[in-house]
Amino acid sequence: MSQVYSVAVVVGSLRKESYNRKVALALAELAPANLKLKIVEIGDLPLYNEDIDVDPPAAYKTFREQLRNSDAVLFVTPEYNRSVPGVLKNAIDVGSRPYGLSSWSGKPGAVISVSPGAVGGFGANHHLRQSLVFLDVPCMQQPEAYIGGAASLFDENGKLTEKTRPFLQTFIDKYAAWVERHQG
Amino acid sequence: MSQVYSVAVVVGSLRKESYNRKVALALAELAPANLKLKIVEIGDLPLYNEDIDVDPPAAYKTFREQLRNSDAVLFVTPEYNRSVPGVLKNAIDVGSRPYGLSSWSGKPGAVISVSPGAVGGFGANHHLRQSLVFLDVPCMQQPEAYIGGAASLFDENGKLTEKTRPFLQTFIDKYAAWVERHQG
Amino acid sequence: MSQVYSVAVVVGSLRKESYNRKVALALAELAPANLKLKIVEIGDLPLYNEDIDVDPPAAYKTFREQLRNSDAVLFVTPEYNRSVPGVLKNAIDVGSRPYGLSSWSGKPGAVISVSPGAVGGFGANHHLRQSLVFLDVPCMQQPEAYIGGAASLFDENGKLTEKTRPFLQTFIDKYAAWVERHQG
Amino acid sequence: MSQVYSVAVVVGSLRKESYNRKVALALAELAPANLKLKIVEIGDLPLYNEDIDVDPPAAYKTFREQLRNSDAVLFVTPEYNRSVPGVLKNAIDVGSRPYGLSSWSGKPGAVISVSPGAVGGFGANHHLRQSLVFLDVPCMQQPEAYIGGAASLFDENGKLTEKTRPFLQTFIDKYAAWVERHQG
Repeated sequence: MSQVYSVAVVVGSLRKESYNRKVALALAELAPANLKLKIVEIGDLPLYNEDIDVDPPAAYKTFREQLRNSDAVLFVTPEYNRSVPGVLKNAIDVGSRPYGLSSWSGKPGAVISVSPGAVGGFGANHHLRQSLVFLDVPCMQQPEAYIGGAASLFDENGKLTEKTRPFLQTFIDKYAAWVERHQG
Repeated sequence: MSQVYSVAVVVGSLRKESYNRKVALALAELAPANLKLKIVEIGDLPLYNEDIDVDPPAAYKTFREQLRNSDAVLFVTPEYNRSVPGVLKNAIDVGSRPYGLSSWSGKPGAVISVSPGAVGGFGANHHLRQSLVFLDVPCMQQPEAYIGGAASLFDENGKLTEKTRPFLQTFIDKYAAWVERHQG
Repeated sequence: MSQVYSVAVVVGSLRKESYNRKVALALAELAPANLKLKIVEIGDLPLYNEDIDVDPPAAYKTFREQLRNSDAVLFVTPEYNRSVPGVLKNAIDVGSRPYGLSSWSGKPGAVISVSPGAVGGFGANHHLRQSLVFLDVPCMQQPEAYIGGAASLFDENGKLTEKTRPFLQTFIDKYAAWVERHQG
Repeated sequence: MSQVYSVAVVVGSLRKESYNRKVALALAELAPANLKLKIVEIGDLPLYNEDIDVDPPAAYKTFREQLRNSDAVLFVTPEYNRSVPGVLKNAIDVGSRPYGLSSWSGKPGAVISVSPGAVGGFGANHHLRQSLVFLDVPCMQQPEAYIGGAASLFDENGKLTEKTRPFLQTFIDKYAAWVERHQG
């Protein structure tokens, strides 16, 4: 009997009809049996402020606990202004504190960026990776996932198009192997 | 009679005793007569969400108006997890929207990063600069300002030490020239 | 009678049929009357080594002199391995030395990245911009130029397609204004 | 009997008295018994040019073969102009070609940056990491190694100071574990 790994999925957009959220949900369906993906919500996290973290808001505590209870972390994010959206970076910051007690540490990770344009969120993808170095999140290198043309990923029924599905399947299968390699 | 330019100063830390805020205030004092620095607060900006921006929160409107009423923008920021703090990136994102109506566009800018460690916020400084390319904020290149050892910038009375002041004076004087060059 | 500015154009690929070289030549034709573009060759520069720079090779001297005799610098580059090609970075390094005597300093610059794929050399473009901060090359922010699909830029006769020309025309016109603003 | 892994060490400076080379040699001495470090020379690699790679120069062939015969790769580099030295980037480019036949692929890696100044080569370190994503070199995240104040790393007899040695010992021990985890 093989181990099942829980993956905290962080989505970088709060928009209800977010393409990134849809990609995250599609990945949850495509994931092999040993990976269980679950979106961790970040929209209610107060902007990080060390002063209020002396007595942390409930939302900080819940978020950190969800991370600590996960075996791995997966980021699905748009690019805002050539970098990581503030809302996602704020979640990174909240999870990284208090100093010396980061909830991210050692959890194997991967990054997918999804954008409407052609560049596919390259800037957000690599800025996020720079933070993951500090956070000691070993990050899958290949396949890189810069997904442009977000509007054409799904058909009129909200299903992944045949053009997109094989890539996401490969991505999540390789990520499962990465997660397994980095346990223990 | 020469022109006076108003500079919106954005501080990347919400901490009450933030070194970055102190550096911002010190710069306001050191600034030559033709630059008027004013901190623009970002701690009350709701996390950016396109859905709520259909009918923008008051805090969004106020912030954008403050930017539009300024002639230039100056960023003073710590580094969180090798990048721009979420709170500052969120302000960048709010100011950049709605799509096509960015409030940052064309305003001459500069970046100072201040951190307790030796590296001086290099990662935050350059990630922010990448966003400024997209935002069409012409950014002063030299002097670069990676200010490490934040704890020793001020003496016991909260005054800039003699070691720090000349550098900040040079910085703000050069910035004044940069702002002037980029008007009109 | 208006001033004419000489622009040193650095092409990041040595390939004879390089798309980047073709784009550089196309820009030279499109440039307004007050900009004179000239490609500065970098293929014969020995790999930078401080030890040999005590008595600099002729190629170093020539290159540095060409930069010093120019009023501005323009980079047209592919992306190699998500960053600046080694050959271009080597030219940057040679031009930046000896220490304290950089030949790049203060010359207004701009960056175009050209690649066969969709991402358009984003990684090379921004890594190069990071170096330009240190080199004190004030760098035009907009329009950003990430030119993907390089193979379809030119028609069968080697002429710019109608799809590409207007963008390059806008780019070089705005750059001319940037160069003018940064003289003196 | 445990496996011994051969590590190709790439040093980003050609200077004879390079601090980076000295750090590389010190790491070779500190390495645990299952890691065998060997510097791979890059100073004779012609600037990468796809045209000459049709019939590759002997130096290209030798370098690629050395990489393919190694189990892992370690980079020790200074920062030139806030990025990777051209000489090192050229080696990256040579090793990555011909297209589809990269010699770097899958080899576990790590990055140390060494510089005279305080910032410790942060810019070079992270630009290099961005290339390693594309090259599918899984890269150790912690400990990060931004080694500033290079001149004081060694005593007058060229021995590592007591201040420096424990960090490098930790680094190479953790890297040995990283290499082992990423075999097979």
